[in-house]
Amino acid sequence: MLRELERLFAGASSRRVATVGIGDDAAVLRAEKRPLVWTIDAQIEGVHFRRAWLSLADIGARSFHAAASDLAAMGARPVAALSSLVVPESMTPRDVVALARGQAMAARSLGCPIVGGNLSRGGELGVTTTLLGAVETPLLRSGARSGDELWLIGNLGLAAAGLRWLTAHDAGRDGRVVTAKTERPGTSSLAPAERRAVRAALAAFRRPRALVRDGRGLAGRARAAIDVSDGLAADATHLADESGVRIVVERAALRRALAPELFTMARLLETDAIELAVSGGEDYALLATGEASRRPRSARPIGRVETGRNALLHDEQGALIPLVGGFDHFRPKRRSAK
Amino acid sequence: MLRELERLFAGASSRRVATVGIGDDAAVLRAEKRPLVWTIDAQIEGVHFRRAWLSLADIGARSFHAAASDLAAMGARPVAALSSLVVPESMTPRDVVALARGQAMAARSLGCPIVGGNLSRGGELGVTTTLLGAVETPLLRSGARSGDELWLIGNLGLAAAGLRWLTAHDAGRDGRVVTAKTERPGTSSLAPAERRAVRAALAAFRRPRALVRDGRGLAGRARAAIDVSDGLAADATHLADESGVRIVVERAALRRALAPELFTMARLLETDAIELAVSGGEDYALLATGEASRRPRSARPIGRVETGRNALLHDEQGALIPLVGGFDHFRPKRRSAK
Repeated sequence: MLRELERLFAGASSRRVATVGIGDDAAVLRAEKRPLVWTIDAQIEGVHFRRAWLSLADIGARSFHAAASDLAAMGARPVAALSSLVVPESMTPRDVVALARGQAMAARSLGCPIVGGNLSRGGELGVTTTLLGAVETPLLRSGARSGDELWLIGNLGLAAAGLRWLTAHDAGRDGRVVTAKTERPGTSSLAPAERRAVRAALAAFRRPRALVRDGRGLAGRARAAIDVSDGLAADATHLADESGVRIVVERAALRRALAPELFTMARLLETDAIELAVSGGEDYALLATGEASRRPRSARPIGRVETGRNALLHDEQGALIPLVGGFDHFRPKRRSAK
Repeated sequence: MLRELERLFAGASSRRVATVGIGDDAAVLRAEKRPLVWTIDAQIEGVHFRRAWLSLADIGARSFHAAASDLAAMGARPVAALSSLVVPESMTPRDVVALARGQAMAARSLGCPIVGGNLSRGGELGVTTTLLGAVETPLLRSGARSGDELWLIGNLGLAAAGLRWLTAHDAGRDGRVVTAKTERPGTSSLAPAERRAVRAALAAFRRPRALVRDGRGLAGRARAAIDVSDGLAADATHLADESGVRIVVERAALRRALAPELFTMARLLETDAIELAVSGGEDYALLATGEASRRPRSARPIGRVETGRNALLHDEQGALIPLVGGFDHFRPKRRSAK
């Protein structure tokens, strides 16, 4: 089994960073002169995903991008990764390889080889990924200053829309396991534009991408950054807390920054696009702050940083609404496990 | 919750290695000139431990040492760690802190601060630890050469004896959860020496220690090393496979290298001390090879390296017995989950 994973993960890029990889007690990395940025992320069956809604390759790729997104938010270049899999008895070696293929694909697309890992039995499928990145000056959550613009890079709300679509259509209720990321339940009676929106939402949920290149583009431009994994409300609040500032999101500007597909999805799901954007995480967009004059081309201004505290939504009528919500595993539950 | 863990883990040693720790997207480590050694290890409830047999602090400390043992086997100095906890709903915040205390204690004793991590819900308790270490020339599994002596550093079999003692006395059957590492079931009718042996075996199982100092002492002396986590049979075989050599363990020499308590335990458990040493893992002893003249004081010679393949036990009658066994999660099961 380990040999198969080694074959999947090994490659020229792996040898560039690691002199010793899978098969020894630990991986050995070449010395790196710049400061290292280091993160770990766990994706657990029944909490972060259901196997009925994602192919095994989706689960692998998604876990990898979720972890890499933390490096993107620091403006770092991913260097290498380790993967720790907890595999239930019901999964065959072939299943494990299918999942690892998704990890390997994500690793390749981010230029971040998987140089080692761990394989264990367990009652529920778990994919834990740790990544090392390199960056001269990391972008922190604590750098936002009053007067900064608030920038959004990437999509917000689409992954949440995809998840709600799967819930609404009760995908997987019959115990059928999704085998391809192209499966789209409940779309046969839709208009073409609606079908495209569902496709975009399901792709956002099943195959999010860490915005590593955009994150690196923020270096020297942004003062602070965070990736939106728990929802705009929760992560804007983290940014405000860590920087000791108030974050104000302009509702009108946020609307302009959202994907057209999100409005179609909101209509299909009989909800509000802003609500999806504010509460939904897992798109792995980036939220950053900086001087307006230094805003990168890929960033859309959605608000500003002021003195004060908390994150607020400034609506078109001039009201300031506290941004609350998002997902915190250790607060009283606001929504059930997916 | 995160704040509490931050307080537990943070400290002077943490600031020495990390400029940014818990609370941001990722930890930021100061640049390190030497090659880095990197490992990840998962300890899963029902697979690696039962909560009825270990206190939460035991589980935390044990997981940390299990991961650190991989660095010990490379001769590396631990630099920093990240911890990823999967916590079932049944555990209170206080339980999580009790577990983290065990991690923090282990981290302090190894001079390896926990600089970040991840906290997630899940159905079963899981502790995944990733460690970075630094070493000029890592000791690999592949360095053993014909003519080398085989060295044992640390104890073998005692942890397995502790585990079997707990199984034999069916600790935790009544659902009682162990709260202190001093609990020793079934010892009231024992002689003092027997009680001491049980205490040593339970301590070996509940609080193993990564032999980091001994591992560093092997640098410049040993040619190859591995930590014994899956049992002498399995790990000697790994060493033989990776080095392309034959490993011969001398039964008489192995007997001399085992702790007196192991023989007492073998008698109490009605088994053989050599069997416990060969099949039992999780003592986290080190197995190394090198020239006899370079053997460190803490290492006991237990065999030799020859041309050929596989690991064999050379008994007192001159027979060569294949060393098979040990624990591999992905082979057909030889023993049930602990």
